Parts: sequence; C-alpha cells; structure tokens
Amino acid sequence: MGISADMRVDIDRFWSTIEASAKVGQGRPGGLSRLTLSDSDREMRDVFAGWCKEAGLTVSVDEVGNMFARRDGRDNSLAPILIGSHLDTQINGGRFDGIAGVLAGLEVLRQLNDAGHHTKRPIVVVNWTNEEGARFSPPMVASGCFVGKYSAAWTKDRIGDDGTRFGDELERIGYAGPDVCKAGDIDAYYELHIEQGPILDAERRDVGIVVGGYPSHGMRASFSGRTAHTGPTPMNLRQNALVAGARWLTSIDDIGWEYAVYDGKATAARLTAWPNKPGILSDTAEAVCDVRHPDLATTKVMAEKMRRALFESAAKTGCTATIEDEWQWGGDIFDTNLVQGLREQAIRMEFNWRDIHSQAGHDAYHLALHCPTAMIFTPCKDGITHNNEEHCEPEDFVAGLNILFHAVIGRADRD
Amino acid sequence: MGISADMRVDIDRFWSTIEASAKVGQGRPGGLSRLTLSDSDREMRDVFAGWCKEAGLTVSVDEVGNMFARRDGRDNSLAPILIGSHLDTQINGGRFDGIAGVLAGLEVLRQLNDAGHHTKRPIVVVNWTNEEGARFSPPMVASGCFVGKYSAAWTKDRIGDDGTRFGDELERIGYAGPDVCKAGDIDAYYELHIEQGPILDAERRDVGIVVGGYPSHGMRASFSGRTAHTGPTPMNLRQNALVAGARWLTSIDDIGWEYAVYDGKATAARLTAWPNKPGILSDTAEAVCDVRHPDLATTKVMAEKMRRALFESAAKTGCTATIEDEWQWGGDIFDTNLVQGLREQAIRMEFNWRDIHSQAGHDAYHLALHCPTAMIFTPCKDGITHNNEEHCEPEDFVAGLNILFHAVIGRADRD
Repeated sequence: MGISADMRVDIDRFWSTIEASAKVGQGRPGGLSRLTLSDSDREMRDVFAGWCKEAGLTVSVDEVGNMFARRDGRDNSLAPILIGSHLDTQINGGRFDGIAGVLAGLEVLRQLNDAGHHTKRPIVVVNWTNEEGARFSPPMVASGCFVGKYSAAWTKDRIGDDGTRFGDELERIGYAGPDVCKAGDIDAYYELHIEQGPILDAERRDVGIVVGGYPSHGMRASFSGRTAHTGPTPMNLRQNALVAGARWLTSIDDIGWEYAVYDGKATAARLTAWPNKPGILSDTAEAVCDVRHPDLATTKVMAEKMRRALFESAAKTGCTATIEDEWQWGGDIFDTNLVQGLREQAIRMEFNWRDIHSQAGHDAYHLALHCPTAMIFTPCKDGITHNNEEHCEPEDFVAGLNILFHAVIGRADRD
Repeated sequence: MGISADMRVDIDRFWSTIEASAKVGQGRPGGLSRLTLSDSDREMRDVFAGWCKEAGLTVSVDEVGNMFARRDGRDNSLAPILIGSHLDTQINGGRFDGIAGVLAGLEVLRQLNDAGHHTKRPIVVVNWTNEEGARFSPPMVASGCFVGKYSAAWTKDRIGDDGTRFGDELERIGYAGPDVCKAGDIDAYYELHIEQGPILDAERRDVGIVVGGYPSHGMRASFSGRTAHTGPTPMNLRQNALVAGARWLTSIDDIGWEYAVYDGKATAARLTAWPNKPGILSDTAEAVCDVRHPDLATTKVMAEKMRRALFESAAKTGCTATIEDEWQWGGDIFDTNLVQGLREQAIRMEFNWRDIHSQAGHDAYHLALHCPTAMIFTPCKDGITHNNEEHCEPEDFVAGLNILFHAVIGRADRD
C-alpha cells in the first residue's frame, strides 16, 4: 500500500507522547530535570521501549546505552534510515529539547503502521545517551562513540560531576546493552529538534531546514594551586586556583563580547574549586568553557584566544593549568541532497520555511561524519531553552513532522 | 605559695597535648581537617574537657558551644582573666592554628597547679566555637556572640556550606550548653596564636607582641540570573550568574594587586553556582570575598571598590547582586597596658621579640570590643598555614608560653 502525498501524521498522538514524557523526571514548574542515566532517565527509557514494542518495533540497546527501535523494510539487506535525538534533559530543562525528535521518529513509524505501508529500507528510531552532557562531559558522547570518535571503554570511564562513573550508572539503571556500539552502513540520518533560538518564532516561520551548524570548540581545564591563609599570605605568594578559574571565565566572557556583534558566543558554563571555603585559598579548580561562531576560521581564532587565556589566568595567579578535554563540532556538514529533499517537501506542502544554522550541538553533527545527515528545526517560544519555561504548542510541530515523514518515506522507498 | 620570676612552663607537657590533638580529625598527611561542630570537633572537645577536669578545672558550655574551663581565684568576686583560642581547623588545616592558644592556656593552669599557687583572680581557658568560618559564615561568630555583636538566635541560624544549621549541628554533637552566651565583667583577655605569616620565622624572632590587627572587610554576596542554552543565546540576552561571580572574583583579585605593594590583600575565597553544568547558563551564584590593609582608611577604600565591583559585575552580565552578609574587624584595638606588660616580660626573660600586626582575624578582635585584650604570636615555618604543611617545633613556643604565663599571673595577682 502506498503513501499518498497528502497524508499527514497524527499531531495529537505525537503530543500525547510529549505530555506523557513531561510527567517523568519533573523539575521546576513546567520543566524537566531528567539527567542522563538517572532513575528518571531509566523510567523514560522504559516508557519509550514500551511504546516501541506496542508499535511492533524491535528494540535493542548497545553497550553505551543507545536505544534502537527498528521497523523492518521489504529488503533488510539494505542500509537503514535512522531518525534520532535524545530523551535526557538539562537539570533545569524543558519538555521538548531532544524529546520531540525521538517522539517524532516514533510518530513517523506509527503513521506507517496505520497506513499499512512497508518501506523498502528499514527505519530505526534512536535515543542517544547523554546528549546534554549535563552529568558527563563531553556532551553527545554516545553518538560520538557510535561513529568511532570515542571508544566505548573511554565513554564508560567518564566521571560525572557527582563523582559517578558513566559505565557504573549505565549498569545501575539496566541499560548497558549487549550490542557493540558501532555504526554499520546507514542510508541517512534525520533529526528533528526545536530551534533553541529565537529566529523561527520571531519571523513566524513554520519550520527551519538546517543547512549546517555553528562551529563550536569546547574545553574542560583544571588549575592547580596551593591552600594558604586568606589573610597574611602576600599577593605574590598566592596560588589561588579559584582565582585562576575566575580569571579564565572572565576572559572567556570578554571573548564572547568581542565577537558578539558578528554573532559569536563564548560561554563559561562550570567552575568548581576545592576547598572553596572562607578563610583559605583554593588548591584546585576545574572549569568548562566553549566558543562558537558562524564562521569556522573565526571559531578557531576564538578557541586560540580561549587557550591563551587559560594559561595567562594560571600564570597570573601562580597556578598551573591543564587541558583535560577538548571537543569541536559544527560547520557546513549536512548532506546537500538530504537538505534539498527537505526543502522540496516544505515547498510542496506550502509551509513558511527558511534555511537556518544550528547554534547548539546535536548528535546529528556526529552522524554527519558517518552518513548523509540532515536536520529540521521547529519553532520554540522566544528561543528560550535549557529552562523550565521552554515552550511549544502542538501546531509548532505540524510542518516539521510532516516534512520529516514524507522525506523519510521518500528516502526509504527510493530505488 | 608565690611564683618565682624564673619559673618556666613545661613545654614537653604542652607539646604532648599538641600531639594528642594532632590525632583527632586527621586530614592530609601531617594536617588536620577538624571542621567546627563535626564528629571530630566533638571528639577533640571531649578530650579537652577531660584534661581540664583532670586539672581540677570547672568546665561549662554556653548556648553556642563556647567551652570555659575555670580555675577559681582567692577572691571569686573579682572579674576573671580569660585565655582563649579555638580547637576547630580549616578543611586542609594545620596542627597549631588556634589549638596552640587553647592548650597554652591549659598549660598555664597546669603549671599553676604544680606550683600550688592560687591567684587572686580566677583564670578561665576558653575554646571558641567556629573561629575558622570553614563551615559557617561569618568566622569568629561565637566570640562575636559572646560580646554582643551577634545574637545567639542569629548565630544558631547560620546555614553551613553543606546545608546544615549551626544550632542543629551543635545539638547533634552534644555541645549546645545551658549557659547564656554573654560576657560578664572580664579583667583581661589573652590569646596566644601562631603568626600565620613569615615575619618571625624570616627574622629568627622568638616571639611577636601583637599591637593590633590589619583592618579587614569581608562580604558574602549572591547573584541572580537565568538559565538558558549556552549555544544560541546571544551575549546581550545572557544572564549567567556564574560569570557575574567570576567577574567579581577577578575584580577582587585586581584590587589586591593594586594595593599589594603597600601590603594590601584581597581574597576571592569561595564561589558556588547553580546549575554550574556544561550546556547551560547558571541561574544563581554566591561568593565570599574580603580585603585587608595595614591602614584603616585604605581598607575602607578597598571595601568600597569591592562593593562597586560587585554591582558592576552584576550589571555587565545582566544579573542582580545582593550583599547577604558583611563583617569587619581589626585596627589598633589591643590594650596598651596589656601589650606593654607582654613586652616587659619578653625583655625581662631576654627573648628576641618584636612588635607585630596580625593579618588574620582572631577571636581576640571581638574580645577587644569588651575588655582589655592582647595577643602573642609564635613563629611558624615560612608562614605556611591553612595547609597541612603548617609546621612548628616545641622550641617555637618557649618564649610565647612563658611570656603568657608570667603576664597572666602578674595580672591575676595584682592588687
């Protein structure tokens, strides 16, 4: 049975899954606090797996907890099409970031079930572990592992900011799966995501076709100093690691302002120190920062300034600095054919669309290193995200989900 | 029975109490981590109370946990002489800071017992609660309460950086005593303390007679911002409370360097933020900073710059700032007669002494608001303190303890 060009997905059914997800791991009013590999992450994974099984999908889990819900094709020797995103959230997260993309994939397959249509190629919905990086650094580590950027052993050895180990927490919640985490042949990867920026909402657009991502460069660094009394110790004998960290964060913010007029951003996201108490200078500190800019060459300059500021901050305070981790993503990485296919669906269904660049990191960036990849952005109110006030209405998803549906079917059924 | 002018205290006996204390609440090698109102603080209080009772002293505890070990005088209608300091330490503290002063007081009374001498006035050894402020801010809160600077209710309501309440922890360790915390008439207060600076050690002095303290001004402030995504949120729409805090700490350090050549210091001691995680801008932050300088007028200028920097840091980052607590101490506050009495003992016993200013805060600063007060400093190696490498030898205490002994007896026995 074929799929008619005017078939539409069931937004109400999709929305009911959003609302069910919004009950699992609630945080501040209206928001979610569903940190990766927490008890509430497990609960949501169980709910999602249940929905997938009800829809007749085959659910499997790999060694770093990535979940795959597969609908067979007519020819299972062909490479599958993947639709993915993530079900984890920030500590003060919203109800849509990531979640909408996974549940959009589920809705596409449920609609195919309703239509009784069997695509030529298999289609797999994916929930990637730890997209947010809100417990374990770096973010998007499990999709990175999938495409070979990180080893599974290294991924499982990540220590969270609560002192727990990724691999141990994965075992604890029962989602350390038996499958090797390694991408085979993939025909295409699609990810739908809320924009997390104000552009679509401000321009009253139905949807954005993502042509690429802002290049981004992140860094986790540590500082080493020496405890001493805050009173008598002369300024030139101090080795206050907390001040080294504070100086770095201040420099990072200055870099952001320097490039703000060209849409550059620099973020000081995290600073911890020990003992970090009144009366004593701190021995150690650790910080996480990143820079991003529409232009790759400029991002590299910003990253170089970030690096220089790190060692300057240490030198100024008599401390030493070490870069513990670095990560980069972004650029014009999406597949031109897939992107054009999404545009054509938007034009055909007469949605008010535009090309857009992503400013956030997404698992799609990793998949793009491995297979043809594209992303769809849906509007979110005022671009507020990573905040319990993140807000979308059901109609915000109509264009994105239907474009995804027809693009995926077209891709899966092509000769 | 009188006290001969050449009588000396028993340094070996004093040292044995230092060594016993060094076993309670051990931290990093050689150091102590005996935070106020912790289990190890209780253990040390119990040990100290046992020694006092063995020495025939009457031990009492007030409502904020201050411990008083009293040796009666021949005329108990006269105001007593107090010798005090503290038995709590920093989280990475040494074996002498504060401890030496309390145990010096005990040694003075043990020596009086050996000599069978009954002073005219009573003498009381005091262990003040929470001198360090390493759990509960402000430091020296319980001696401040004693002299009426803080109420007992307010003191007990302090919330520690581990979320516990001062009054609850006091109850938990069994040191919420029945006595009202309120100083009556006090004839004099003496405190012996390690210098916590490098001067005596560098000049190979036996002892320092403290003529006053560096004026100091401390502040605990909070910042309020808004969580948002680290990626798409434009610089001018960010309200990252972590950056507000980092900017304040950086400014504080700058103020310290500005006055360093005149022996001024400014300290960024503590910064916490929430969520303080990768991928998200922080909602709230809290910081503790202070400034100090030999000159009161300059300290006031530095404090004003600290205050201005606070609101500038908030304004630059779109956050709001609130001063939660402020405290000041220091100046030329010690009693000229008591100080001169200490100098005369140093001269008489031919110690190599000098006048010195304290750069750290001490409970003596609070007592000086209430009664004639003086302090004695003993050398510590390289001035290293608030660090497990804090180091003294028994001979470092010979001058200080004997000056204390004869000065206290002279004061207690005067007509």
